[in-house]
Amino acid sequence: MPASPPDPSSAGTVGSAGLSGLSGATCVVTGGLGFIGSNLALALAAGGARVRVVDALVAQHGGDRRNLAQRPDIEVLEARLDHPCVADLVADADVVFNVAGQVSHHASMTDPLRDLDLNVTSHLAFLETLRAVNPTVRVVYTSTRQVYGRPEHIPVDEGHPARPVDVNGIDKLACEQLHLLYSAVHGLRATALRLTNVYGPRQNLLKDDLGALPVFVRRALRGETIRLYGDGTQRRDCLHVDDVVRALVAATTDAAVGMIVNIGHDQSVTLREIAEELIAAVTSEGGPRSDVELAPWPAEAAKIDIGDFETDSTRATRVLGWKPEIGLRDGARDTVVFYRRHPWYLSST
Amino acid sequence: MPASPPDPSSAGTVGSAGLSGLSGATCVVTGGLGFIGSNLALALAAGGARVRVVDALVAQHGGDRRNLAQRPDIEVLEARLDHPCVADLVADADVVFNVAGQVSHHASMTDPLRDLDLNVTSHLAFLETLRAVNPTVRVVYTSTRQVYGRPEHIPVDEGHPARPVDVNGIDKLACEQLHLLYSAVHGLRATALRLTNVYGPRQNLLKDDLGALPVFVRRALRGETIRLYGDGTQRRDCLHVDDVVRALVAATTDAAVGMIVNIGHDQSVTLREIAEELIAAVTSEGGPRSDVELAPWPAEAAKIDIGDFETDSTRATRVLGWKPEIGLRDGARDTVVFYRRHPWYLSST
Repeated sequence: MPASPPDPSSAGTVGSAGLSGLSGATCVVTGGLGFIGSNLALALAAGGARVRVVDALVAQHGGDRRNLAQRPDIEVLEARLDHPCVADLVADADVVFNVAGQVSHHASMTDPLRDLDLNVTSHLAFLETLRAVNPTVRVVYTSTRQVYGRPEHIPVDEGHPARPVDVNGIDKLACEQLHLLYSAVHGLRATALRLTNVYGPRQNLLKDDLGALPVFVRRALRGETIRLYGDGTQRRDCLHVDDVVRALVAATTDAAVGMIVNIGHDQSVTLREIAEELIAAVTSEGGPRSDVELAPWPAEAAKIDIGDFETDSTRATRVLGWKPEIGLRDGARDTVVFYRRHPWYLSST
Repeated sequence: MPASPPDPSSAGTVGSAGLSGLSGATCVVTGGLGFIGSNLALALAAGGARVRVVDALVAQHGGDRRNLAQRPDIEVLEARLDHPCVADLVADADVVFNVAGQVSHHASMTDPLRDLDLNVTSHLAFLETLRAVNPTVRVVYTSTRQVYGRPEHIPVDEGHPARPVDVNGIDKLACEQLHLLYSAVHGLRATALRLTNVYGPRQNLLKDDLGALPVFVRRALRGETIRLYGDGTQRRDCLHVDDVVRALVAATTDAAVGMIVNIGHDQSVTLREIAEELIAAVTSEGGPRSDVELAPWPAEAAKIDIGDFETDSTRATRVLGWKPEIGLRDGARDTVVFYRRHPWYLSST
């Protein structure tokens, strides 16, 4: 996997520039067979880090061994975070990227105990393992903008109240607080990143329950109608996964220990614009043309919807030296190119 | 148990005036064999409610069947909140007072998974049970001022950021948010009360891990030295349990559905003043005289200490029509009278 500068034609390869600081370091990536985790693991390995992955390959989630098939030197442990064998994996780690999690808001409402188990209980056991075997390790935890709930003001900075509107948001907030508590009290050196919506290569496109963006990508690639709720003008910011990988690595700076940091894009777009950019990217690559359809909000989705959202990432720029580099147009094109080169992401086996 | 107006000589009997609204109602009290739960259950029964208690009698907690021995008509189910048999108990309840919980901050730090299990997981299962069998039931959940963490300003109202500084606070905050989520989304009619420190009759005095106040009470009753950390000038407000029972009942008003409400006292006192009031109450009743000793803060306790705290209970007065009626002097005297009449609370069997 060659190192290259950020470029929409890189199809899922972040530049090594931001990763050189971890060359030679031993890095553990939890959830490393999933979307963000696998992109991070590959980038770290390309940058010269020794990479170990722990992933439970939970059936409903986005993990897939094929995401890391190109790098057999990445050690993969298939286990839950609370399995005793995880201790050996993390004991001599320099950095732990704790990316594993249940991401479906809908699933958190239909099976809340499962979300609690996967997003809090197993992580608390993992923190206890770290406290026992590697108590001062550097940890970067991926939280979510969902912890804010419905914004009181836009853009949303880290001082905005955290009032989550679904079980997933409550659980992610508790897990984030546990990480920072272990940092304040037990010597762990943890940072929590609150990520906005993320898209890009190596995302599971076939499950309808992992967010709106992968569904949009799948339907655009297949030339199927993309359905939007309401009038489609709901605003979001979204990040290409390469920007997120750079943020995760930048967050290992000592200046961010004990902090919560928003990671979002300054480009505010409507869901309709996201769909249209994806459709345009597919057609420009010679693929089929989808259309967009508006539909009334389903009651269950409306209850936990947060309305418009924009992220204020000022702190990320100030403390991490990070800002997004990939706009939606380039990011959509890179994403489409990647999936057309790797068609197994669109096949159901 | 005769109904009587609030009176420091009542030794643990709240007046029935505030409880008459629940006469004839079917009330479930979780944790009803414990300190606050048993005082509530007895008051509800005295006020004419049909009372059912579910309590797991967790060994390290404050529950004791003798707390309810005077009222054999109160039905007691010994079970965890997540036990399937709880469904029958709550299916036709008019009001659920969800008081059960692990209260030790120290224990939450030494065994965080146990705190999570008892303060979140079992409560989430309980909420799922309610959603299944009694989805619009009125629920009053007892949260804690500990969810605020170290105050940014004093007194602390409900708009103050919630930044808990120990596992117990994180877990109680998550559980409170889950109750309010089920209220907002699933039709449950829940209210969360954030209680300050509580003292009074029927508290387990023999376990050192259930808060500072029961230890103070025990040592005062025995004439033993009361140890304070630092200089003893740390400020708190504290409530006699009869005031808390009235608040719990007042919180069943429809006006409080979906709300968080602080329940504290407007009388701010130092820990030293609390100790001295208890010592004075014991000696005025003919008991032995304790003294007060200052000791340096143990490192582990200092890490999770929150400094001075005062509660702003304006919302409770406005929405619930509640305010504290028992000052520290009267409350201490009532407490001492109760335990001298019921010496088994001070014996180790």
